[in-house]
Amino acid sequence: MTNGEDKITSWFASQCSLPVSDFPIGIGDDMAQIRIGDESVLITTDILLDGVHFDLSTATLEQVGYKAMAASISDCAAMATIPLAAVVSVALTKEFSEDQIKQLHSGVMRASKKYSCPLVGGDIAKWKKDSPFVINVAMLSKPAKNKPVRRSGAKVGDCICVTGMLGGSIFGKHLDFEPRVNEAIKLAEMVELHSMMDLSDGISSDLNRICTQSKVGALIEADKIPISGDAQRTENPLEAALNDGEDFELLFTLSQKDCEKLIEQWNESVPVTKIGTITEQSDFQIKMPDGQVKYIQVKGFDHLAK
Amino acid sequence: MTNGEDKITSWFASQCSLPVSDFPIGIGDDMAQIRIGDESVLITTDILLDGVHFDLSTATLEQVGYKAMAASISDCAAMATIPLAAVVSVALTKEFSEDQIKQLHSGVMRASKKYSCPLVGGDIAKWKKDSPFVINVAMLSKPAKNKPVRRSGAKVGDCICVTGMLGGSIFGKHLDFEPRVNEAIKLAEMVELHSMMDLSDGISSDLNRICTQSKVGALIEADKIPISGDAQRTENPLEAALNDGEDFELLFTLSQKDCEKLIEQWNESVPVTKIGTITEQSDFQIKMPDGQVKYIQVKGFDHLAK
Repeated sequence: MTNGEDKITSWFASQCSLPVSDFPIGIGDDMAQIRIGDESVLITTDILLDGVHFDLSTATLEQVGYKAMAASISDCAAMATIPLAAVVSVALTKEFSEDQIKQLHSGVMRASKKYSCPLVGGDIAKWKKDSPFVINVAMLSKPAKNKPVRRSGAKVGDCICVTGMLGGSIFGKHLDFEPRVNEAIKLAEMVELHSMMDLSDGISSDLNRICTQSKVGALIEADKIPISGDAQRTENPLEAALNDGEDFELLFTLSQKDCEKLIEQWNESVPVTKIGTITEQSDFQIKMPDGQVKYIQVKGFDHLAK
Repeated sequence: MTNGEDKITSWFASQCSLPVSDFPIGIGDDMAQIRIGDESVLITTDILLDGVHFDLSTATLEQVGYKAMAASISDCAAMATIPLAAVVSVALTKEFSEDQIKQLHSGVMRASKKYSCPLVGGDIAKWKKDSPFVINVAMLSKPAKNKPVRRSGAKVGDCICVTGMLGGSIFGKHLDFEPRVNEAIKLAEMVELHSMMDLSDGISSDLNRICTQSKVGALIEADKIPISGDAQRTENPLEAALNDGEDFELLFTLSQKDCEKLIEQWNESVPVTKIGTITEQSDFQIKMPDGQVKYIQVKGFDHLAK
């Protein structure tokens, strides 16, 4: 059930045995956690490539700078942590101009200011040949009052919820999304989140990751999935909502009691929707609108697919 | 006197005003420092490109993995800080194999183990087209007992010193160097370092950075420069020792009294050599073996040169 990226990540994790006292969270979650004296800090790194994660023939450098920062901020949100600082590395194309650097910078700073995550350093290299633009953001965060929320904490009987509307991100949202960091911190304050991650590769891939790491299964209800307007424009809106990458919404699980409380008290503009339940069997199933139960194929976005 | 990279870095720094209480060290040093409660952490990021920082037609992926980690460990050394953890991002080529990932990983882990800097996470993307391999390492460190040593602390009258032998790194050392992190910590314990950085672009560029940031000048003595065996193989060994990039040795300044003490008491296998003096005038001069004084042209390695 795992895709290429998960397989490599698992292999890496198996090669690195980190002492839990110094590294409470290691490879395989949205961020790693490092103990520093009585404090701790979390770190994530994301590499974005022209022609893979964006396309500079249609996207602006301002949008790319924003997206790169926002994707890492979304990782901070995924664990209900507070962004602290970012460092940005870029590989400039051979003909990159100063003006282009300023455009890129303005996008980086738009996200930096909006989500209070200062840019504190970086590295700039330049291709000698005609190779594509690359941007990497590494970001630090700190735990909110609560512990960081992991992928591995889902419990049988948990409700499965998402923020926002899903699918069709490719029509524009993937360049201008709002990472749900404020929502994540609010959620963590209101209820006890058992597990959480951000939706970067589609529910079908990402919920599978929560299930695998938590050693549980899931049953989701097709008619509960909040399908975005953009997904509605596609041939199969439900498929789009299940499989499209880069929604950057939150996927989380919590007890039924906390879920009821949340649905009742949540008054943010970004909706929260219960879409299913964590089950005992290690299958991942979907109940179709006609009542039929199907096994979901994992075919969310695989960054390593050939 | 500044090259392309410095110009962009200065521009970035001018755009980001960071509160010193939260960010004691911001853009423009080897690492940025972030306060976290009563503790602090430093962060650096380095992007390395096939065809620019290494050449996969001659270097192995094991060497590239080692070099990427060691370059960041050298940044930790540059400020006399202790490496804590690393995250690695890679852009794999279209035809990358699992076996190649294992080779890369073994190089990363060789540096990780040698310098006690665990790999705690990462990101893996893959080119869709025929584009070159990229690796980015972001690394955290913590201050040793003393404060991190900055570039901006050089004082008029300081002795200028370097570790190791300089020049000709391209003949092999650039793929298999030993970042001077243990030496840096030992130096910081023995004496009060006024300024320090690691030599990534050659003395002519890097000493100029210390001078610019410290608002001082420098006079170095040609016949004191420790010229490596590899630099001796070149047409102009002195030029090679002054201008070649990627020596990854330490360049530092300290009081004359501390310098005398250091030269007398230093008993590590890596040599420490006094090569000159910090001066009042904001020029950067070199005294040739015949006694003639020349102004040094800044022509060290510029990663952004066309």
